[in-house]
Amino acid sequence: MKLASVKAGRDGALVVVSQDLGRQLPTGMTLQDALDNWADTRPVLQDLCGRVNAGEGEPFDESACASPLPRAYQWADGSAYVNHVELVRRARGAEMPESFWNDPLMYQGGSDTFLGPREPIVMASEDWGIDFEGEIAVVTGDVPMGATAAQAAEAIRLVMLVNDVSLRNLIPAELGKGFGFFQSKPSSAFSPVCVTPDELGDAWNGGRLHLPLLVSYNGALFGKANAGVDMTFDFPTLVAHAAKTRPLGAGTIIGSGTVSNKDADGSPGRPVAAGGLGYSCIAEIRMIETIEGGAPQTPFMRYGDRVRIEMCDESGHSIFGAIEQQVSAPQ
Amino acid sequence: MKLASVKAGRDGALVVVSQDLGRQLPTGMTLQDALDNWADTRPVLQDLCGRVNAGEGEPFDESACASPLPRAYQWADGSAYVNHVELVRRARGAEMPESFWNDPLMYQGGSDTFLGPREPIVMASEDWGIDFEGEIAVVTGDVPMGATAAQAAEAIRLVMLVNDVSLRNLIPAELGKGFGFFQSKPSSAFSPVCVTPDELGDAWNGGRLHLPLLVSYNGALFGKANAGVDMTFDFPTLVAHAAKTRPLGAGTIIGSGTVSNKDADGSPGRPVAAGGLGYSCIAEIRMIETIEGGAPQTPFMRYGDRVRIEMCDESGHSIFGAIEQQVSAPQ
Repeated sequence: MKLASVKAGRDGALVVVSQDLGRQLPTGMTLQDALDNWADTRPVLQDLCGRVNAGEGEPFDESACASPLPRAYQWADGSAYVNHVELVRRARGAEMPESFWNDPLMYQGGSDTFLGPREPIVMASEDWGIDFEGEIAVVTGDVPMGATAAQAAEAIRLVMLVNDVSLRNLIPAELGKGFGFFQSKPSSAFSPVCVTPDELGDAWNGGRLHLPLLVSYNGALFGKANAGVDMTFDFPTLVAHAAKTRPLGAGTIIGSGTVSNKDADGSPGRPVAAGGLGYSCIAEIRMIETIEGGAPQTPFMRYGDRVRIEMCDESGHSIFGAIEQQVSAPQ
Repeated sequence: MKLASVKAGRDGALVVVSQDLGRQLPTGMTLQDALDNWADTRPVLQDLCGRVNAGEGEPFDESACASPLPRAYQWADGSAYVNHVELVRRARGAEMPESFWNDPLMYQGGSDTFLGPREPIVMASEDWGIDFEGEIAVVTGDVPMGATAAQAAEAIRLVMLVNDVSLRNLIPAELGKGFGFFQSKPSSAFSPVCVTPDELGDAWNGGRLHLPLLVSYNGALFGKANAGVDMTFDFPTLVAHAAKTRPLGAGTIIGSGTVSNKDADGSPGRPVAAGGLGYSCIAEIRMIETIEGGAPQTPFMRYGDRVRIEMCDESGHSIFGAIEQQVSAPQ
């Protein structure tokens, strides 16, 4: 099943979307409603899904979409690509403890005001170091406290893409205070469409999504790291981590952290222009530039800069639609 | 107005409660509904409020209540009583930067599964260092990104009490990872009743609640610190801090952090039994014990231990009803 929330009120209007993203059919509910009562709503949605894939429905318009959950009761973001964590920490002069390879890193994000996938990233200052982070996320049903990874796997309802907007220049001082991110992680945006894991076929395997995440920056391909590669912790492990000391409510969103692949020889990846897989955020290329030339060259995002995040199936069709956002000043 | 959510489904059934907490009237909506449409719902609720205070309604039962928002789109907790922050950090051997007196400390909490005010604190292990934290919280309407403290003050809709349950023995390792609290901050619980600021009369002044927070532990008074004293950052400042780089959605809960008063001579407060104002969490008394005797004496909570958090008006009547929770093992 492919699902989207067309903009309407605070929670959007849930539609089922055809596999080719061409058509939609209304469902009469919100995505949170559907997740709250999944046993009852899933068959209803599946029936609608069969109909939209058979040719019923109205044209689907990605730009009319809110994030699948325009607001959510929980957004927790892991850092499963430990390669990325190591690079970003090295970039700000922080060492990475060995335990990071065994104990998932996860932060609690703000979930009350997500951006739509085509909405601008409005920031009061370019000096905050505006960066995108291309990620994968899952949406869960209810997860009991202390769930095992196997139980957590059963609770994964949906998969989608994320732009976890980060304000790099606010991070060092904020993390230095010891309480984690807050102002340095403004509203995130999610792909127009979220899909059930079965919709991904063989690409969903071992709790990971084995396809390249396509990140373009100002019209040029910036990254194509495979989300199934170098993902140290799979999604069931991340969900179980989140549920260790409390249950997770239906509609909880758990992110993968920035998708990042090492180069074939084990060194940090090269830019796309140099034949590498590139990067899913600016901070990583700045790190590579620092390693190679002593200082970062690529600036963070400025007003007018555009990022596009998408994933295609093996025949080149967009699975989730595209996140496409431009940085802009407050009006 | 006094409002509560009687347990029903995932979001409870909003009732208006009489000032003496004796009676309730149904509203036909949830608290989130009310906050999402405050301009329209407020007059309706005020009308019902007049009726319940005039004697209409059914008996009100605190133990039938969920937290006012059984789940919320945002829970962000400040540390406005910098006195507490300094003590707790000293207790774990961490220094406090001078900037903490000017720049509010705030963490993003989990908001998808709050405990009801009389529900047990179920924890898989007593070794996690289970502690209560008595706090005040406000619930906001929509707050625009970059709001000033004055604008934030206008957006404060409701006030309530919190037990911000903390797992002290998980905190050092988790904060050491740099991403803030996650597993060390399980589900919080809120007072049965939340109230509009006008309901607090002169006690709500300067964006602070000037009354003692009564914390009892296993039946004995443990703390009576005044929530209006030593609160370095008022609520409007905390809300504006949260809104610096993103808007806040209606129903955002912003906490004060553990209420804590210095002693009259400026030194850390004494226990209630020694004539002091006592503490709103166990970690503080352990710190005092460490300062005075070299080691903490009071253990963290064990299965069966009970905490009660309440606030009374000047005539001794409970304003919010009581949070009353017992620690228990999973069944």
